[in-house]
Amino acid sequence: MKIVLIGAGNVATHLGSALQQAGYELLQVYSRTEESASVLARKLSTGYTVSIEGIRRDADLYIVALKDSALQELLPLLVKGREQAFFVHTAGSMPMELWKGHLSRYGVLYPMQTFSKQREVDFATVPFFIEASGAAELDVLRELAGKLSPKVYEVTSEQRKYLHIAAVFACNFANHMYALSAHVLEQHGIPFEVMLSLIDETAKKVHELPPVQAQTGPAIRYDENVIGKHLDLLAGEPDVQELYEKISKSIYNNRLRKD
Amino acid sequence: MKIVLIGAGNVATHLGSALQQAGYELLQVYSRTEESASVLARKLSTGYTVSIEGIRRDADLYIVALKDSALQELLPLLVKGREQAFFVHTAGSMPMELWKGHLSRYGVLYPMQTFSKQREVDFATVPFFIEASGAAELDVLRELAGKLSPKVYEVTSEQRKYLHIAAVFACNFANHMYALSAHVLEQHGIPFEVMLSLIDETAKKVHELPPVQAQTGPAIRYDENVIGKHLDLLAGEPDVQELYEKISKSIYNNRLRKD
Repeated sequence: MKIVLIGAGNVATHLGSALQQAGYELLQVYSRTEESASVLARKLSTGYTVSIEGIRRDADLYIVALKDSALQELLPLLVKGREQAFFVHTAGSMPMELWKGHLSRYGVLYPMQTFSKQREVDFATVPFFIEASGAAELDVLRELAGKLSPKVYEVTSEQRKYLHIAAVFACNFANHMYALSAHVLEQHGIPFEVMLSLIDETAKKVHELPPVQAQTGPAIRYDENVIGKHLDLLAGEPDVQELYEKISKSIYNNRLRKD
Repeated sequence: MKIVLIGAGNVATHLGSALQQAGYELLQVYSRTEESASVLARKLSTGYTVSIEGIRRDADLYIVALKDSALQELLPLLVKGREQAFFVHTAGSMPMELWKGHLSRYGVLYPMQTFSKQREVDFATVPFFIEASGAAELDVLRELAGKLSPKVYEVTSEQRKYLHIAAVFACNFANHMYALSAHVLEQHGIPFEVMLSLIDETAKKVHELPPVQAQTGPAIRYDENVIGKHLDLLAGEPDVQELYEKISKSIYNNRLRKD
Protein backbone atom coordinates (compact mmCIF):
# COMPACT_ATOMS: atom_id res chain seq x y z
CA MET A 1 0.00 0.00 0.00
CA LYS A 2 1.48 3.28 -1.19
CA ILE A 3 0.81 6.45 0.79
CA VAL A 4 1.30 10.17 0.10
CA LEU A 5 1.51 12.43 3.14
CA ILE A 6 -0.03 15.88 2.73
CA GLY A 7 1.50 18.03 5.48
CA ALA A 8 4.79 17.89 7.35
CA GLY A 9 3.89 19.06 10.86
CA ASN A 10 3.90 17.13 14.13
CA VAL A 11 1.10 14.72 13.22
CA ALA A 12 2.46 13.99 9.72
CA THR A 13 5.96 13.45 11.09
CA HIS A 14 5.01 11.06 13.90
CA LEU A 15 2.42 9.22 11.80
CA GLY A 16 4.68 8.96 8.73
CA SER A 17 7.50 7.36 10.73
CA ALA A 18 5.14 4.93 12.43
CA LEU A 19 3.52 3.89 9.14
CA GLN A 20 6.90 3.30 7.56
CA GLN A 21 7.97 1.15 10.51
CA ALA A 22 4.72 -0.80 10.11
CA GLY A 23 5.76 -1.64 6.53
CA TYR A 24 3.83 0.90 4.50
CA GLU A 25 5.49 2.60 1.54
CA LEU A 26 5.62 6.37 1.91
CA LEU A 27 5.67 7.59 -1.72
CA GLN A 28 6.01 11.31 -1.17
CA VAL A 29 5.61 14.23 1.21
CA TYR A 30 3.83 17.46 0.28
CA SER A 31 4.17 20.68 2.24
CA ARG A 32 3.86 24.32 1.22
CA THR A 33 7.15 24.94 3.01
CA GLU A 34 10.31 23.62 1.34
CA GLU A 35 12.08 23.40 4.69
CA SER A 36 9.51 21.15 6.41
CA ALA A 37 8.83 19.06 3.29
CA SER A 38 12.52 18.29 2.80
CA VAL A 39 13.19 17.54 6.48
CA LEU A 40 10.36 15.00 6.68
CA ALA A 41 11.14 13.50 3.24
CA ARG A 42 14.75 12.96 4.32
CA LYS A 43 13.60 11.36 7.56
CA LEU A 44 11.42 8.95 5.56
CA SER A 45 14.00 8.51 2.74
CA THR A 46 11.43 9.52 0.15
CA GLY A 47 10.66 12.36 -2.26
CA TYR A 48 8.80 15.58 -1.68
CA THR A 49 7.04 18.38 -3.53
CA VAL A 50 5.98 21.91 -2.64
CA SER A 51 3.53 22.24 -5.55
CA ILE A 52 0.06 20.73 -5.49
CA GLU A 53 0.39 19.82 -9.17
CA GLY A 54 3.55 17.87 -8.26
CA ILE A 55 1.69 15.52 -5.92
CA ARG A 56 1.87 11.98 -7.32
CA ARG A 57 -1.26 10.40 -8.70
CA ASP A 58 -0.44 6.75 -8.10
CA ALA A 59 -0.94 6.48 -4.34
CA ASP A 60 -3.47 4.12 -2.76
CA LEU A 61 -4.08 6.54 0.09
CA TYR A 62 -3.60 10.26 0.65
CA ILE A 63 -3.29 11.19 4.34
CA VAL A 64 -3.97 14.89 4.88
CA ALA A 65 -2.49 16.20 8.15
CA LEU A 66 -2.93 19.96 7.83
CA LYS A 67 -4.26 22.69 10.11
CA ASP A 68 -8.05 23.04 9.83
CA SER A 69 -7.81 26.30 7.89
CA ALA A 70 -5.23 24.92 5.42
CA LEU A 71 -7.30 21.77 4.92
CA GLN A 72 -10.35 23.84 3.93
CA GLU A 73 -8.31 26.09 1.69
CA LEU A 74 -6.36 23.36 -0.12
CA LEU A 75 -9.06 20.69 -0.40
CA PRO A 76 -10.47 21.72 -3.82
CA LEU A 77 -6.94 21.84 -5.25
CA LEU A 78 -5.89 18.52 -3.72
CA VAL A 79 -8.77 16.52 -5.17
CA LYS A 80 -8.64 18.09 -8.65
CA GLY A 81 -7.69 15.38 -11.15
CA ARG A 82 -7.56 12.83 -8.28
CA GLU A 83 -11.31 12.16 -8.06
CA GLN A 84 -10.75 8.39 -8.02
CA ALA A 85 -8.28 8.48 -5.13
CA PHE A 86 -8.86 7.65 -1.45
CA PHE A 87 -8.32 10.68 0.82
CA VAL A 88 -8.44 10.85 4.64
CA HIS A 89 -7.78 13.69 7.07
CA THR A 90 -6.40 13.43 10.59
CA ALA A 91 -8.18 16.39 12.22
CA GLY A 92 -10.37 15.65 15.23
CA SER A 93 -12.45 18.76 14.75
CA MET A 94 -13.33 18.48 11.02
CA PRO A 95 -16.36 16.49 9.80
CA MET A 96 -15.93 13.74 7.23
CA GLU A 97 -18.55 15.39 5.03
CA LEU A 98 -16.12 18.04 3.84
CA TRP A 99 -14.93 15.51 1.23
CA LYS A 100 -18.45 14.81 -0.02
CA GLY A 101 -19.15 15.96 -3.60
CA HIS A 102 -15.41 16.08 -4.33
CA LEU A 103 -14.64 12.36 -4.12
CA SER A 104 -16.34 9.01 -3.71
CA ARG A 105 -13.73 7.39 -1.41
CA TYR A 106 -12.83 9.32 1.70
CA GLY A 107 -12.58 9.07 5.46
CA VAL A 108 -11.09 10.22 8.73
CA LEU A 109 -8.08 8.77 10.58
CA TYR A 110 -7.80 10.69 13.85
CA PRO A 111 -5.03 9.71 16.28
CA MET A 112 -5.92 11.39 19.56
CA GLN A 113 -2.78 12.61 21.31
CA THR A 114 -1.00 15.84 22.23
CA PHE A 115 1.88 15.72 19.76
CA SER A 116 4.97 17.81 20.28
CA LYS A 117 8.30 17.84 18.54
CA GLN A 118 10.20 17.36 21.80
CA ARG A 119 8.64 14.04 22.71
CA GLU A 120 8.55 10.65 21.01
CA VAL A 121 5.09 9.14 20.52
CA ASP A 122 4.32 5.55 21.41
CA PHE A 123 1.46 4.87 19.01
CA ALA A 124 0.66 1.60 20.77
CA THR A 125 -0.98 3.70 23.50
CA VAL A 126 -2.71 6.18 21.15
CA PRO A 127 -6.38 5.61 20.30
CA PHE A 128 -7.35 5.99 16.63
CA PHE A 129 -10.84 7.14 15.66
CA ILE A 130 -11.88 6.15 12.15
CA GLU A 131 -14.79 6.91 9.85
CA ALA A 132 -15.16 6.26 6.11
CA SER A 133 -17.41 6.74 3.10
CA GLY A 134 -18.00 3.00 2.66
CA ALA A 135 -17.34 -0.44 4.10
CA ALA A 136 -14.28 -1.09 1.92
CA GLU A 137 -12.65 2.19 2.92
CA LEU A 138 -13.42 1.53 6.57
CA ASP A 139 -11.72 -1.87 6.31
CA VAL A 140 -8.58 -0.24 4.90
CA LEU A 141 -8.47 2.28 7.76
CA ARG A 142 -9.20 -0.36 10.40
CA GLU A 143 -6.32 -2.50 9.16
CA LEU A 144 -3.92 0.43 8.86
CA ALA A 145 -4.74 1.92 12.30
CA GLY A 146 -4.68 -1.57 13.78
CA LYS A 147 -1.05 -1.99 12.74
CA LEU A 148 -0.12 1.08 14.80
CA SER A 149 -2.34 0.65 17.84
CA PRO A 150 -4.63 -1.91 19.46
CA LYS A 151 -7.06 0.91 20.24
CA VAL A 152 -9.11 1.57 17.10
CA TYR A 153 -12.61 2.97 17.46
CA GLU A 154 -15.20 3.61 14.77
CA VAL A 155 -17.03 6.86 15.55
CA THR A 156 -19.35 9.18 13.67
CA SER A 157 -18.44 12.80 12.90
CA GLU A 158 -21.07 13.79 15.48
CA GLN A 159 -19.37 11.69 18.19
CA ARG A 160 -15.97 13.02 17.14
CA LYS A 161 -17.09 16.60 17.85
CA TYR A 162 -17.78 15.66 21.46
CA LEU A 163 -14.62 13.59 21.63
CA HIS A 164 -12.72 16.75 20.77
CA ILE A 165 -14.49 18.70 23.53
CA ALA A 166 -13.73 15.87 25.96
CA ALA A 167 -10.07 15.99 24.94
CA VAL A 168 -9.96 19.75 25.53
CA PHE A 169 -11.15 19.15 29.12
CA ALA A 170 -8.88 16.17 29.84
CA CYS A 171 -5.76 17.62 28.22
CA ASN A 172 -5.80 21.41 27.69
CA PHE A 173 -7.91 22.28 30.72
CA ALA A 174 -6.19 19.80 33.04
CA ASN A 175 -2.88 21.28 31.90
CA HIS A 176 -4.18 24.74 32.72
CA MET A 177 -4.92 23.57 36.26
CA TYR A 178 -1.23 22.59 36.43
CA ALA A 179 -0.33 26.05 35.09
CA LEU A 180 -2.39 27.85 37.76
CA SER A 181 -0.86 25.58 40.39
CA ALA A 182 2.64 26.48 39.13
CA HIS A 183 1.72 30.16 39.21
CA VAL A 184 0.54 30.04 42.85
CA LEU A 185 3.70 28.13 43.86
CA GLU A 186 6.00 30.48 41.98
CA GLN A 187 4.54 33.49 43.76
CA HIS A 188 5.42 31.92 47.09
CA GLY A 189 8.89 30.67 46.28
CA ILE A 190 8.08 26.96 45.99
CA PRO A 191 9.37 24.95 42.98
CA PHE A 192 6.69 23.39 40.72
CA GLU A 193 8.63 20.12 40.89
CA VAL A 194 7.05 19.44 44.33
CA MET A 195 3.69 18.96 42.57
CA LEU A 196 4.74 16.26 40.06
CA SER A 197 4.14 13.25 42.28
CA LEU A 198 0.60 14.43 43.06
CA ILE A 199 -0.07 15.11 39.37
CA ASP A 200 1.12 11.61 38.41
CA GLU A 201 -0.93 9.91 41.10
CA THR A 202 -4.05 11.91 40.11
CA ALA A 203 -3.66 10.72 36.51
CA LYS A 204 -2.96 7.11 37.57
CA LYS A 205 -6.01 6.94 39.82
CA VAL A 206 -8.48 7.37 36.95
CA HIS A 207 -7.13 4.22 35.32
CA GLU A 208 -8.80 2.36 38.20
CA LEU A 209 -11.69 4.58 39.32
CA PRO A 210 -14.13 6.83 37.42
CA PRO A 211 -12.95 10.44 38.02
CA VAL A 212 -16.11 11.33 39.96
CA GLN A 213 -15.32 8.55 42.44
CA ALA A 214 -11.62 9.47 42.60
CA GLN A 215 -12.36 13.04 43.69
CA THR A 216 -10.91 14.20 47.04
CA GLY A 217 -10.31 17.60 48.67
CA PRO A 218 -12.39 20.44 50.10
CA ALA A 219 -14.80 20.92 47.16
CA ILE A 220 -16.29 17.40 47.10
CA ARG A 221 -17.56 17.84 50.69
CA TYR A 222 -18.03 21.60 50.14
CA ASP A 223 -15.91 22.42 53.19
CA GLU A 224 -16.84 26.11 53.48
CA ASN A 225 -14.14 26.73 56.05
CA VAL A 226 -11.26 25.66 53.76
CA ILE A 227 -12.87 27.04 50.57
CA GLY A 228 -13.50 30.40 52.26
CA LYS A 229 -9.87 30.62 53.43
CA HIS A 230 -8.59 29.77 49.94
CA LEU A 231 -10.84 32.37 48.31
CA ASP A 232 -9.54 35.01 50.76
CA LEU A 233 -5.94 34.06 49.99
CA LEU A 234 -6.64 34.44 46.25
CA ALA A 235 -8.24 37.88 46.64
CA GLY A 236 -5.30 39.54 44.87
CA GLU A 237 -6.07 37.58 41.70
CA PRO A 238 -9.77 37.91 40.92
CA ASP A 239 -9.60 35.70 37.79
CA VAL A 240 -7.97 32.80 39.61
CA GLN A 241 -10.31 33.32 42.57
CA GLU A 242 -13.38 33.17 40.32
CA LEU A 243 -12.18 29.94 38.67
CA TYR A 244 -11.47 28.43 42.11
CA GLU A 245 -15.03 29.16 43.21
CA LYS A 246 -16.75 28.04 39.99
CA ILE A 247 -14.80 24.78 39.72
CA SER A 248 -15.41 24.01 43.42
CA LYS A 249 -19.15 24.48 42.92
CA SER A 250 -19.06 22.34 39.79
CA ILE A 251 -17.27 19.54 41.70
CA TYR A 252 -19.91 19.67 44.43
CA ASN A 253 -22.80 19.73 41.94
CA ASN A 254 -21.35 16.78 40.01
CA ARG A 255 -20.64 14.61 43.06
CA LEU A 256 -23.70 12.41 42.60
CA ARG A 257 -23.03 11.55 38.96
CA LYS A 258 -22.08 7.97 38.33
CA ASP A 259 -19.98 8.46 35.17
CA MET B 1 12.72 6.57 68.52
CA LYS B 2 9.28 5.64 69.83
CA ILE B 3 6.20 6.99 68.12
CA VAL B 4 2.51 7.14 69.02
CA LEU B 5 0.07 7.56 66.13
CA ILE B 6 -3.01 9.67 66.86
CA GLY B 7 -5.55 8.75 64.18
CA ALA B 8 -6.12 5.61 62.11
CA GLY B 9 -7.30 6.94 58.75
CA ASN B 10 -5.57 6.81 55.35
CA VAL B 11 -2.65 9.07 56.26
CA ALA B 12 -1.99 7.37 59.64
CA THR B 13 -2.17 3.92 58.03
CA HIS B 14 0.19 4.61 55.12
CA LEU B 15 2.60 6.69 57.25
CA GLY B 16 2.60 4.20 60.14
CA SER B 17 3.53 1.27 57.90
CA ALA B 18 6.25 3.26 56.17
CA LEU B 19 7.77 4.44 59.46
CA GLN B 20 7.79 0.91 60.82
CA GLN B 21 9.54 -0.33 57.66
CA ALA B 22 12.08 2.47 58.13
CA GLY B 23 12.91 1.08 61.56
CA TYR B 24 10.87 3.27 63.86
CA GLU B 25 9.08 1.76 66.83
CA LEU B 26 5.32 2.32 66.73
CA LEU B 27 4.33 2.25 70.42
CA GLN B 28 0.58 2.63 70.10
CA VAL B 29 -2.34 3.73 67.93
CA TYR B 30 -5.12 5.99 69.18
CA SER B 31 -8.46 6.38 67.44
CA ARG B 32 -11.90 7.27 68.71
CA THR B 33 -13.23 4.27 66.79
CA GLU B 34 -12.42 0.81 68.20
CA GLU B 35 -12.71 -0.72 64.72
CA SER B 36 -10.14 1.51 63.00
CA ALA B 37 -7.79 1.58 66.01
CA SER B 38 -7.68 -2.20 66.23
CA VAL B 39 -7.27 -2.74 62.48
CA LEU B 40 -4.27 -0.42 62.27
CA ALA B 41 -2.75 -1.70 65.55
CA ARG B 42 -2.95 -5.25 64.25
CA LYS B 43 -1.34 -4.19 60.97
CA LEU B 44 1.53 -2.63 62.93
CA SER B 45 1.63 -5.44 65.55
CA THR B 46 1.26 -2.91 68.34
CA GLY B 47 -1.25 -1.81 70.98
CA TYR B 48 -4.10 0.65 70.73
CA THR B 49 -6.42 2.75 72.86
CA VAL B 50 -9.73 4.50 72.26
CA SER B 51 -9.44 6.74 75.33
CA ILE B 52 -7.32 9.88 75.38
CA GLU B 53 -6.29 9.12 78.98
CA GLY B 54 -5.01 5.75 77.75
CA ILE B 55 -2.46 7.31 75.35
CA ARG B 56 1.04 6.39 76.51
CA ARG B 57 3.24 9.12 77.95
CA ASP B 58 6.65 7.67 77.07
CA ALA B 59 6.78 8.36 73.30
CA ASP B 60 9.46 10.52 71.72
CA LEU B 61 7.04 11.76 69.08
CA TYR B 62 3.26 11.99 68.75
CA ILE B 63 2.10 12.12 65.12
CA VAL B 64 -1.42 13.49 64.88
CA ALA B 65 -3.17 12.52 61.61
CA LEU B 66 -6.75 13.61 62.22
CA LYS B 67 -9.29 15.57 60.21
CA ASP B 68 -8.94 19.32 60.73
CA SER B 69 -12.06 19.55 62.87
CA ALA B 70 -11.05 16.59 65.08
CA LEU B 71 -7.55 18.03 65.49
CA GLN B 72 -8.96 21.31 66.78
CA GLU B 73 -11.43 19.57 69.07
CA LEU B 74 -9.01 17.03 70.57
CA LEU B 75 -5.88 19.17 70.83
CA PRO B 76 -6.44 20.50 74.38
CA LEU B 77 -7.13 16.97 75.63
CA LEU B 78 -4.15 15.43 73.81
CA VAL B 79 -1.57 17.79 75.27
CA LYS B 80 -2.94 17.72 78.83
CA GLY B 81 -0.34 16.13 81.08
CA ARG B 82 2.00 15.75 78.08
CA GLU B 83 3.31 19.31 78.02
CA GLN B 84 6.92 18.10 77.68
CA ALA B 85 6.20 15.88 74.65
CA PHE B 86 6.92 16.55 70.97
CA PHE B 87 3.74 16.72 68.87
CA VAL B 88 3.38 17.14 65.11
CA HIS B 89 0.34 17.17 62.84
CA THR B 90 0.15 16.01 59.22
CA ALA B 91 -2.53 18.41 57.89
CA GLY B 92 -1.55 20.63 54.99
CA SER B 93 -4.20 23.22 55.78
CA MET B 94 -3.54 23.75 59.52
CA PRO B 95 -0.97 26.29 60.77
CA MET B 96 1.80 25.18 63.13
CA GLU B 97 0.78 27.89 65.60
CA LEU B 98 -2.21 25.90 66.81
CA TRP B 99 0.22 24.10 69.18
CA LYS B 100 1.62 27.34 70.59
CA GLY B 101 0.79 27.99 74.25
CA HIS B 102 0.05 24.30 74.79
CA LEU B 103 3.54 22.88 74.30
CA SER B 104 7.11 23.97 73.76
CA ARG B 105 8.07 21.28 71.21
CA TYR B 106 5.87 20.95 68.17
CA GLY B 107 5.85 20.93 64.40
CA VAL B 108 4.26 19.90 61.12
CA LEU B 109 5.02 16.82 59.02
CA TYR B 110 2.91 17.12 55.86
CA PRO B 111 3.22 14.38 53.22
CA MET B 112 1.57 15.81 50.10
CA GLN B 113 -0.30 13.07 48.27
CA THR B 114 -3.84 11.98 47.48
CA PHE B 115 -4.14 8.96 49.75
CA SER B 116 -6.78 6.35 49.20
CA LYS B 117 -7.34 2.95 50.75
CA GLN B 118 -7.40 1.22 47.37
CA ARG B 119 -3.89 2.24 46.31
CA GLU B 120 -0.47 1.57 47.78
CA VAL B 121 1.67 4.66 48.37
CA ASP B 122 5.29 4.82 47.28
CA PHE B 123 6.62 7.35 49.80
CA ALA B 124 9.89 7.66 47.86
CA THR B 125 7.97 9.84 45.39
CA VAL B 126 5.99 11.81 47.99
CA PRO B 127 7.28 15.25 49.02
CA PHE B 128 7.28 16.01 52.76
CA PHE B 129 6.86 19.58 54.00
CA ILE B 130 8.21 20.18 57.49
CA GLU B 131 8.13 23.01 60.00
CA ALA B 132 9.05 23.00 63.70
CA SER B 133 9.14 25.08 66.88
CA GLY B 134 12.96 24.96 67.09
CA ALA B 135 16.13 23.78 65.38
CA ALA B 136 16.32 20.51 67.35
CA GLU B 137 12.74 19.57 66.47
CA LEU B 138 13.33 20.48 62.83
CA ASP B 139 16.36 18.15 62.78
CA VAL B 140 14.25 15.28 64.09
CA LEU B 141 11.60 15.81 61.42
CA ARG B 142 14.17 16.25 58.64
CA GLU B 143 15.81 12.95 59.58
CA LEU B 144 12.51 11.11 59.92
CA ALA B 145 11.02 12.41 56.65
CA GLY B 146 14.37 11.83 54.94
CA LYS B 147 14.15 8.11 55.74
CA LEU B 148 10.87 7.90 53.84
CA SER B 149 11.52 10.21 50.90
CA PRO B 150 14.37 12.11 49.25
CA LYS B 151 12.00 15.07 48.81
CA VAL B 152 11.92 16.97 52.11
CA TYR B 153 11.17 20.69 52.04
CA GLU B 154 11.18 23.16 54.91
CA VAL B 155 8.29 25.59 54.46
CA THR B 156 6.54 28.16 56.62
CA SER B 157 2.87 27.87 57.57
CA GLU B 158 2.25 30.82 55.22
CA GLN B 159 3.84 28.97 52.29
CA ARG B 160 1.97 25.80 53.22
CA LYS B 161 -1.38 27.61 52.81
CA TYR B 162 -0.53 28.36 49.19
CA LEU B 163 0.92 24.89 48.70
CA HIS B 164 -2.49 23.55 49.65
CA ILE B 165 -4.22 25.84 47.13
CA ALA B 166 -1.73 24.74 44.47
CA ALA B 167 -2.47 21.10 45.30
CA VAL B 168 -6.22 21.72 44.96
CA PHE B 169 -5.61 23.02 41.42
CA ALA B 170 -3.15 20.30 40.35
CA CYS B 171 -5.06 17.40 41.89
CA ASN B 172 -8.74 18.08 42.69
CA PHE B 173 -9.37 20.53 39.85
CA ALA B 174 -7.39 18.55 37.25
CA ASN B 175 -9.39 15.49 38.30
CA HIS B 176 -12.60 17.48 37.80
CA MET B 177 -11.51 18.23 34.24
CA TYR B 178 -11.24 14.43 33.80
CA ALA B 179 -14.73 14.09 35.32
CA LEU B 180 -16.26 16.63 32.91
CA SER B 181 -14.47 14.89 30.03
CA ALA B 182 -15.93 11.55 31.16
CA HIS B 183 -19.37 13.12 31.40
CA VAL B 184 -19.25 14.49 27.82
CA LEU B 185 -18.03 11.12 26.52
CA GLU B 186 -20.65 9.17 28.44
CA GLN B 187 -23.44 11.27 26.95
CA HIS B 188 -22.24 10.35 23.47
CA GLY B 189 -21.63 6.64 24.01
CA ILE B 190 -17.82 6.75 24.07
CA PRO B 191 -15.92 4.91 26.86
CA PHE B 192 -13.75 7.11 29.14
CA GLU B 193 -10.92 4.60 28.64
CA VAL B 194 -10.16 6.28 25.26
CA MET B 195 -8.95 9.37 27.16
CA LEU B 196 -6.36 7.67 29.41
CA SER B 197 -3.43 7.87 27.02
CA LEU B 198 -3.97 11.60 26.53
CA ILE B 199 -4.30 12.15 30.29
CA ASP B 200 -1.04 10.27 30.94
CA GLU B 201 0.85 12.16 28.25
CA THR B 202 -0.45 15.51 29.55
CA ALA B 203 0.84 14.66 33.04
CA LYS B 204 4.19 13.40 31.70
CA LYS B 205 4.80 16.51 29.61
CA VAL B 206 5.01 18.82 32.65
CA HIS B 207 7.93 16.79 33.98
CA GLU B 208 9.89 18.29 31.08
CA LEU B 209 8.20 21.61 30.28
CA PRO B 210 6.56 24.28 32.47
CA PRO B 211 2.77 23.82 32.04
CA VAL B 212 2.36 27.23 30.35
CA GLN B 213 4.80 26.10 27.65
CA ALA B 214 3.21 22.66 27.34
CA GLN B 215 -0.22 24.12 26.54
CA THR B 216 -1.82 23.15 23.20
CA GLY B 217 -5.35 23.28 21.78
CA PRO B 218 -7.85 25.93 20.67
CA ALA B 219 -7.70 28.17 23.77
CA ILE B 220 -3.97 28.98 23.68
CA ARG B 221 -4.38 30.57 20.19
CA TYR B 222 -7.95 31.68 21.04
CA ASP B 223 -9.32 29.94 17.94
CA GLU B 224 -12.78 31.55 17.95
CA ASN B 225 -14.03 29.18 15.29
CA VAL B 226 -13.39 26.01 17.32
CA ILE B 227 -14.24 27.63 20.68
CA GLY B 228 -17.52 28.97 19.27
CA LYS B 229 -18.49 25.53 17.92
CA HIS B 230 -17.70 23.89 21.25
CA LEU B 231 -19.73 26.46 23.20
CA ASP B 232 -22.70 25.83 20.87
CA LEU B 233 -22.39 22.07 21.37
CA LEU B 234 -22.42 22.57 25.16
CA ALA B 235 -25.52 24.81 25.08
CA GLY B 236 -27.60 22.11 26.79
CA GLU B 237 -25.36 22.28 29.86
CA PRO B 238 -24.95 25.92 30.88
CA ASP B 239 -22.63 25.14 33.85
CA VAL B 240 -20.19 23.13 31.73
CA GLN B 241 -20.42 25.72 28.95
CA GLU B 242 -19.59 28.55 31.36
CA LEU B 243 -16.55 26.67 32.70
CA TYR B 244 -15.39 25.94 29.14
CA GLU B 245 -15.51 29.64 28.29
CA LYS B 246 -13.90 30.90 31.51
CA ILE B 247 -11.07 28.37 31.45
CA SER B 248 -10.40 29.08 27.74
CA LYS B 249 -10.13 32.81 28.49
CA SER B 250 -7.87 32.12 31.45
CA ILE B 251 -5.57 29.98 29.25
CA TYR B 252 -5.36 32.77 26.69
CA ASN B 253 -4.74 35.46 29.33
CA ASN B 254 -2.00 33.37 30.97
CA ARG B 255 -0.20 32.48 27.74
CA LEU B 256 2.56 35.05 28.23
CA ARG B 257 3.49 33.98 31.75
CA LYS B 258 6.85 32.31 32.09
CA ASP B 259 6.15 30.16 35.15
